[in-house]
Amino acid sequence: MTDPASSLSTDLIARFTAIVGASHALREAADIAPHLEELRGLYHGRSSLVLKPGSVEEVSAILKLATETGTAIVPQGGNTGLVGAQTPDESGRAVVVSMSRMNRIREIDLVGNVIVAESGCVLAAVQSAANEADRMFPLSLGSEGSCEIGGNLSSNAGGTAVLAYGNARQLCLGLEVVLPTGEIWSGLRRLKKDNTGYDLRDLFIGAEGTLGIITAAVLKLYARPKGHEVVFAALDTPADALELFRLAEDLCGTSLTGFELMPRIGVEFTSRHIENVRDPLPEPYPWYALIDISSRQSPEAARSMVEELFEAASDKGLVRDAVLAESETQKHELWHMREAMSWAQQPEGGSIKHDVSVPIARIPEFLDRAGKGVLAAEPAARIVAFGHIGDGNIHYNISQPVGADKAAFLARWHEMNEIVHGVVLDLDGSISAEHGIGQLKREELAAIRQPIEIDLMKRIKKAFDPAGIMNPGKML
Amino acid sequence: MTDPASSLSTDLIARFTAIVGASHALREAADIAPHLEELRGLYHGRSSLVLKPGSVEEVSAILKLATETGTAIVPQGGNTGLVGAQTPDESGRAVVVSMSRMNRIREIDLVGNVIVAESGCVLAAVQSAANEADRMFPLSLGSEGSCEIGGNLSSNAGGTAVLAYGNARQLCLGLEVVLPTGEIWSGLRRLKKDNTGYDLRDLFIGAEGTLGIITAAVLKLYARPKGHEVVFAALDTPADALELFRLAEDLCGTSLTGFELMPRIGVEFTSRHIENVRDPLPEPYPWYALIDISSRQSPEAARSMVEELFEAASDKGLVRDAVLAESETQKHELWHMREAMSWAQQPEGGSIKHDVSVPIARIPEFLDRAGKGVLAAEPAARIVAFGHIGDGNIHYNISQPVGADKAAFLARWHEMNEIVHGVVLDLDGSISAEHGIGQLKREELAAIRQPIEIDLMKRIKKAFDPAGIMNPGKML
Repeated sequence: MTDPASSLSTDLIARFTAIVGASHALREAADIAPHLEELRGLYHGRSSLVLKPGSVEEVSAILKLATETGTAIVPQGGNTGLVGAQTPDESGRAVVVSMSRMNRIREIDLVGNVIVAESGCVLAAVQSAANEADRMFPLSLGSEGSCEIGGNLSSNAGGTAVLAYGNARQLCLGLEVVLPTGEIWSGLRRLKKDNTGYDLRDLFIGAEGTLGIITAAVLKLYARPKGHEVVFAALDTPADALELFRLAEDLCGTSLTGFELMPRIGVEFTSRHIENVRDPLPEPYPWYALIDISSRQSPEAARSMVEELFEAASDKGLVRDAVLAESETQKHELWHMREAMSWAQQPEGGSIKHDVSVPIARIPEFLDRAGKGVLAAEPAARIVAFGHIGDGNIHYNISQPVGADKAAFLARWHEMNEIVHGVVLDLDGSISAEHGIGQLKREELAAIRQPIEIDLMKRIKKAFDPAGIMNPGKML
Repeated sequence: MTDPASSLSTDLIARFTAIVGASHALREAADIAPHLEELRGLYHGRSSLVLKPGSVEEVSAILKLATETGTAIVPQGGNTGLVGAQTPDESGRAVVVSMSRMNRIREIDLVGNVIVAESGCVLAAVQSAANEADRMFPLSLGSEGSCEIGGNLSSNAGGTAVLAYGNARQLCLGLEVVLPTGEIWSGLRRLKKDNTGYDLRDLFIGAEGTLGIITAAVLKLYARPKGHEVVFAALDTPADALELFRLAEDLCGTSLTGFELMPRIGVEFTSRHIENVRDPLPEPYPWYALIDISSRQSPEAARSMVEELFEAASDKGLVRDAVLAESETQKHELWHMREAMSWAQQPEGGSIKHDVSVPIARIPEFLDRAGKGVLAAEPAARIVAFGHIGDGNIHYNISQPVGADKAAFLARWHEMNEIVHGVVLDLDGSISAEHGIGQLKREELAAIRQPIEIDLMKRIKKAFDPAGIMNPGKML
């Protein structure tokens, strides 16, 4: 008895629907559509059922039934992922489980400095809850207004605060997870130290929903800084940026809360296409650093770190010119330029993208070698390489030549990937620093990781998900 | 053909010996003895073969042969573990693999701020290598002069610098591991960001040698602080200590590099039994905090944090009296009192020990309830509870009543454990904060973790070590 519009039987649909109630089981194409495609339209699939569970028990019942019946499950948070991990395939046989209804902040513990959030909480809502309690949850990304904590953890999200506070992984103390079999692991620990057995938590973080569904997490909170400075500095080379970074790190330690590298062309693109962005300096320079310094002590302490840093930098002749933000508005404008660099490339035509990391000592060598390789293949390519230099993480984007055919340029995606990733791998880097594997890099993963690594991952997958129902076709 | 002195056949001994060479295969009882028993004599076992491999290839050949022949392997570092994870059982059928010969520092990368060390490097040697390069490797423990990095990682060691720098886990970027099958995982990555698949590294860290043998690691280095202050403060209650900790954390962030809680009786024991230790204050007080503050910027910045902290503490009436160390010698003396508190209990007779953690907000409640429970069972017990308050980690030791029979008191170990661990578990704490499970807490682990957790751990164990040769009888 098969529903003609889908590959899921009507009986199965009824059984899944009964778990969450009819009003939380989406069946209409119009309701389902937003869950089948991600924002940029790069990945889309089919499904005739989206379930929106409201409790861990409902998630458990869904996965138990899925394992019993061999039904593929695609967990979904805010649907903002960039590698196609959160959308179903074209078979129509998968059930999408949207976690957005599980969006309660269960607790804020101000002495332990933790917040217990359900996985459907939007990142910005967690940040707000922390702010209202005079604390800070430092995870911060472009999509924070719609991405959800469960997705952030499943993809081990990075963002702009990693330098001082780490990725999502480092911000999580405990998890509640429903296993593919429906069993519930109540691992909502809030201990800083606990040496009792294997580290299960870190297996689920970054697993892209292939080992179970995260339903809640204990997340770390921090004191809000009392002083904050933002500087935009002009530099000659990436090597100078690296030396400046090293000076800043030595001087500021974890008070160095951001250090972003940007090329001239990125400043040109944002100035040209983004409202309210203009070059902060009167003359052009080849490279720039955006430096963010916070002090937990006082505004004066932050300012004195900036002064000391630029004194040391000037002794070494590292900085060509610089602007210190003098107001909250100006700080926001400088950061806005960096954040807008991602979408300022769009009006310039096709862009072939990479999210890579290399050991930070090798960033200048990476940029040099990748640049030569790309320009040898396409002399008119415009390289927009920017990112988190302190994390070794470069968003290495290649804009099409001026006036070129967009489709023809984008057809060279694989060719450019090979050039850039070849240099990355030669430098012991990673082809996915923060976005993950999903569908986008699944085949490449098998090629770049050692066979023993892939084998160990597959053994873990099989041990946790014997029926193979969790997000099949993603990552592994 | 069985060697009469052992349960390993002479043929097998010859095959293992051929891998490392006769001079690195210990066969004589006198040579083997130090590897069979740990320092305190609590755990001892039998074995007729200790292998000392000199390369990852030799480790690989050993484990390959072990899996083929079903021979149990006990990996050993500096043999300083406190839970019996590193010594063989009484069967005599296990081969001990001592990693001490693999003690090369392979590389120091000053731009990437990492050191690549083989697992047999003594912790103090890694610290020294970092110091010589004008960097700091912050892991610090009582046994640092003999414990080895492989053991530190396999036990996820803690120590006195966890507050600012984390456990061994947080200090490791990459691993080289030989799997039970002899396969080599070359995971010596030094990337801060790498989202390409499951987190294999963190599975091996803290696995107590049950999933493979760590042969080398990429470890993080830090800038050495430019300013450093140590304060000894007298307090009325653990609740006041917690409030003072919270003030210090808010004010100093990761410049707060130590915050240790100590009871009056601990200061009495150390003053009485340890040379060169005396009460730093003229009057006795019920509780004390040892506060360690570092600044990456300057001596003045460290001093000003101390001043600001004690101004705020004085506004709240938290501190009864305090001493600020005025010299390096005095700083050392104050820390020495804290470190000596572990062994200052010995001259007072039997001591029943616990290494527990609770959410830090609940430390006062834990101390109150555990104290009442212990004193109800033994009114003359002397509770010496001290430790890393900022990690929620208390070394909860119970010294025998004055003049009591030591053996009779120690026979109550299990009874006292039940009382203390009962409160810990009721407060969502951990019965092993930093020492691990090993043999000591193996049975208890199965009782306190959820069945699903034990089941997942066993599934991982089986997936990695199908022949069950790696450190059997430990942890799981």
